[in-house]
Amino acid sequence: MLISRCLRLILSDIITPSCLHHLLLEFLGTTLFLSASLSGVLMLPAAGLGQPTNQSVLSAVQSGLVPVSPANPLQVVLIFGLSVAMAAVCVGGDVHLNPAVTIAMALTLRVPLWRAALYVIGQLLGGVASAALLLALTGDVTPALNQVSAGVWLYQAVAVETLVTLQLILVVMATTDVPLPTVAPPLLVGLAVSLGHLVALSSTGCGMNPARSFGPAVITLDFTDHWVFWAGPGLGACLAALLNDLLLRPRWRRPGDWW
Amino acid sequence: MLISRCLRLILSDIITPSCLHHLLLEFLGTTLFLSASLSGVLMLPAAGLGQPTNQSVLSAVQSGLVPVSPANPLQVVLIFGLSVAMAAVCVGGDVHLNPAVTIAMALTLRVPLWRAALYVIGQLLGGVASAALLLALTGDVTPALNQVSAGVWLYQAVAVETLVTLQLILVVMATTDVPLPTVAPPLLVGLAVSLGHLVALSSTGCGMNPARSFGPAVITLDFTDHWVFWAGPGLGACLAALLNDLLLRPRWRRPGDWW
Amino acid sequence: MLISRCLRLILSDIITPSCLHHLLLEFLGTTLFLSASLSGVLMLPAAGLGQPTNQSVLSAVQSGLVPVSPANPLQVVLIFGLSVAMAAVCVGGDVHLNPAVTIAMALTLRVPLWRAALYVIGQLLGGVASAALLLALTGDVTPALNQVSAGVWLYQAVAVETLVTLQLILVVMATTDVPLPTVAPPLLVGLAVSLGHLVALSSTGCGMNPARSFGPAVITLDFTDHWVFWAGPGLGACLAALLNDLLLRPRWRRPGDWW
Amino acid sequence: MLISRCLRLILSDIITPSCLHHLLLEFLGTTLFLSASLSGVLMLPAAGLGQPTNQSVLSAVQSGLVPVSPANPLQVVLIFGLSVAMAAVCVGGDVHLNPAVTIAMALTLRVPLWRAALYVIGQLLGGVASAALLLALTGDVTPALNQVSAGVWLYQAVAVETLVTLQLILVVMATTDVPLPTVAPPLLVGLAVSLGHLVALSSTGCGMNPARSFGPAVITLDFTDHWVFWAGPGLGACLAALLNDLLLRPRWRRPGDWW
Repeated sequence: MLISRCLRLILSDIITPSCLHHLLLEFLGTTLFLSASLSGVLMLPAAGLGQPTNQSVLSAVQSGLVPVSPANPLQVVLIFGLSVAMAAVCVGGDVHLNPAVTIAMALTLRVPLWRAALYVIGQLLGGVASAALLLALTGDVTPALNQVSAGVWLYQAVAVETLVTLQLILVVMATTDVPLPTVAPPLLVGLAVSLGHLVALSSTGCGMNPARSFGPAVITLDFTDHWVFWAGPGLGACLAALLNDLLLRPRWRRPGDWW
Repeated sequence: MLISRCLRLILSDIITPSCLHHLLLEFLGTTLFLSASLSGVLMLPAAGLGQPTNQSVLSAVQSGLVPVSPANPLQVVLIFGLSVAMAAVCVGGDVHLNPAVTIAMALTLRVPLWRAALYVIGQLLGGVASAALLLALTGDVTPALNQVSAGVWLYQAVAVETLVTLQLILVVMATTDVPLPTVAPPLLVGLAVSLGHLVALSSTGCGMNPARSFGPAVITLDFTDHWVFWAGPGLGACLAALLNDLLLRPRWRRPGDWW
Repeated sequence: MLISRCLRLILSDIITPSCLHHLLLEFLGTTLFLSASLSGVLMLPAAGLGQPTNQSVLSAVQSGLVPVSPANPLQVVLIFGLSVAMAAVCVGGDVHLNPAVTIAMALTLRVPLWRAALYVIGQLLGGVASAALLLALTGDVTPALNQVSAGVWLYQAVAVETLVTLQLILVVMATTDVPLPTVAPPLLVGLAVSLGHLVALSSTGCGMNPARSFGPAVITLDFTDHWVFWAGPGLGACLAALLNDLLLRPRWRRPGDWW
Repeated sequence: MLISRCLRLILSDIITPSCLHHLLLEFLGTTLFLSASLSGVLMLPAAGLGQPTNQSVLSAVQSGLVPVSPANPLQVVLIFGLSVAMAAVCVGGDVHLNPAVTIAMALTLRVPLWRAALYVIGQLLGGVASAALLLALTGDVTPALNQVSAGVWLYQAVAVETLVTLQLILVVMATTDVPLPTVAPPLLVGLAVSLGHLVALSSTGCGMNPARSFGPAVITLDFTDHWVFWAGPGLGACLAALLNDLLLRPRWRRPGDWW
């Protein structure tokens, strides 16, 4: 009886134009963001600086004469930072586009739990949709997979993912807590995403966003070490939520702060 | 009778100082933007990082020891993003500088059809003028041509052009729909142009702007696959216009929204 | 008697929630900023463009075929600039995160001397904490040490550090003196930090912040030429304070300006 | 009689605290800007990506196996853009820091002629002072000279300098004509300077600022083709002034617009 009333209350909160529109925005924004990012990663090598392009260079590489890099790191860094900023500008500044952001927002009671679950589903669907789009376009999305680099221990990978997600979520929470001009939050979040990729690209390929890791993993059915890209960002989101609300901008003073 | 009255009404809307001034701004802005961009592309190789400059290096390349890249992609990305932003700052924030933008604006009835046609003519003339200027200055504008890279199918080229134009037009429409400080729209559009070049540079050279593709094609009379650089941006502009006005910021609620 | 009253007054100023919270912010901000920066520096080489990674390439380098660079300078420049900007955004715009900034602020009587001393202690502890964190994570923080490059005289190193700190502190003082939107100061300071790294990276590794130099030096117990990274920034801070308050934005006109 | 009265009027306009302070700001700002820029150019090679650093690589270069580039162009582009933006932030947004800007401002009667002459003198002194400082610090400022590259005709060099100065001055005039937030003009001018360097670096080393070209030329007494770096920027400034005031933002409508 009580449960059914709760469910009905939750449903009446969810099935509103505003909530469904927000869900649609999460899906469209994540699809747009990840289509641009992943297509950048997939199409870079052909133009990548220092990337061998002809047969003789390839054989030289196999014999060890030229350093091999899958793509110029700075290009990847710029693509992810710019595409998340542009998607947030297009779709509107209050989308999350990242399950880790939604987790932090739900944990600090800024978003109701049931809405948060819906947003995460929208984001994951967006990730899968963009990976499927790129599979149709390029025929292979394996290079877009997040993978722990050879020589990096799993605990290191989780720690790095936690660190970069921590700073991303702190920036996101600062942009929601402090009044800013309309255009500032997307750009700041884009810069934080770029910083994360600068730090983590060499060790984990930089997940920092479970939807970004989930899409290519589903399409290629390659879930090797996939838990790292949920554990790290999840842990980082929880730490950032605590750090922000308890130490940086304390909210425990009055009970009313919590709702 | 009716037609002549319509024509007279259209003419009386066009032959006004404000409309003619706007047309002049479109021409001057596009000329300025493309002169800077294309001269950057044409003059880069001499200073390009990793670009072989002497005979012995060339022979080493032919024997496969050094990777060959036509120019540092990041420089091209920065040049196009910065030059479109600077041209929009110089000329004033409400110019389009891109037929794809004008198409999206006309399709959503933000600009009358006849004005849109004039603006497109101004932009194409600007593209031709800047390509002619660079021909006079450097003697050869072939490297500035937009071309589908070897190994890229035409449907892939159209898809990539559609994708990058889609995100550009979505950003442009967001900056016109949401009130922003004066200086924000040019910079956001510049960032979207940079993102497009990061994604599409390796597969199509990144058109994203039919005026940019049309200028060098007219001057070199090389129209190979030129339709790709009209079809992709045109399709992207239509998709973006629909997506923006129907899903992201719906305008179908009241009839008055449409005029 | 007088001394004990002074001490009691100072203590009553220090032991307030606001001052202790600010001290905590300095510690957390510096830890966050330096964890991101130094982890970027430590993890870059594996993905560094043009960085040889296998034995055969190393031997090719020794025989002279491939240029050797320790890491792509642009990545280091971006990491430091972005991480200081993001840390200032997260923690709030009025933290210093740099003993040189605190020295300039104390010298111009913008911050009381005892508070300045506390902030510097917080910043140094943050530097040590982040270096310890990275030691635990990567096992070796030697590459993150600030060192005077081979072939650079000590007086040159001090002069370069003075110059880059001078411009950083001038920017910081301009952002505190001129009213700016909330988000501008962190970004401007981040740009000034990036500029400093562009200038000084090749000669001293760019200290510009004694806390950044102190952390890895304590953890590795390697204090070779460590005084350079205190003398240069200290001198730069004093020069910038004088230049700003006497010449650029004179404050000597009324006695009230000084308190 | 009349002349002496004119002179006295001019002197009474010049010898005011405000004008002398502005002159001082021009000198200090130009010195600061060029010290940072030129020291960046002079110190880059040691850390430059793709720059050979050991004996064996040097010999390989002399035998032609590795492409030689004096410094990574992107670093130079970033240094000049950032240092002019930071100097303008430090010193205050209404300094010119560039004789070409002052010429355009004097030509359009925005600044009285005699003040313009004083500002240009201050800027040139700043250029010489920074070049002298760098001579004392590094022992050789030859690499900081602006020189027309081999294979570039003088008319091409002048045309390129005119083009990049044209867009710079148009941006400067847009930022003075349109009301903008305090922090926007320095950043926009910095972006325009970066764009100019991207375009012109390979052909002329990018002058765009006679004070920047004059300083190292005086110190090294090497005035080869030095007129190019006055003619190009001067021509660009005049064209930009005409274009801005006659076509982009017409000011000829009322006589009062001219004073």
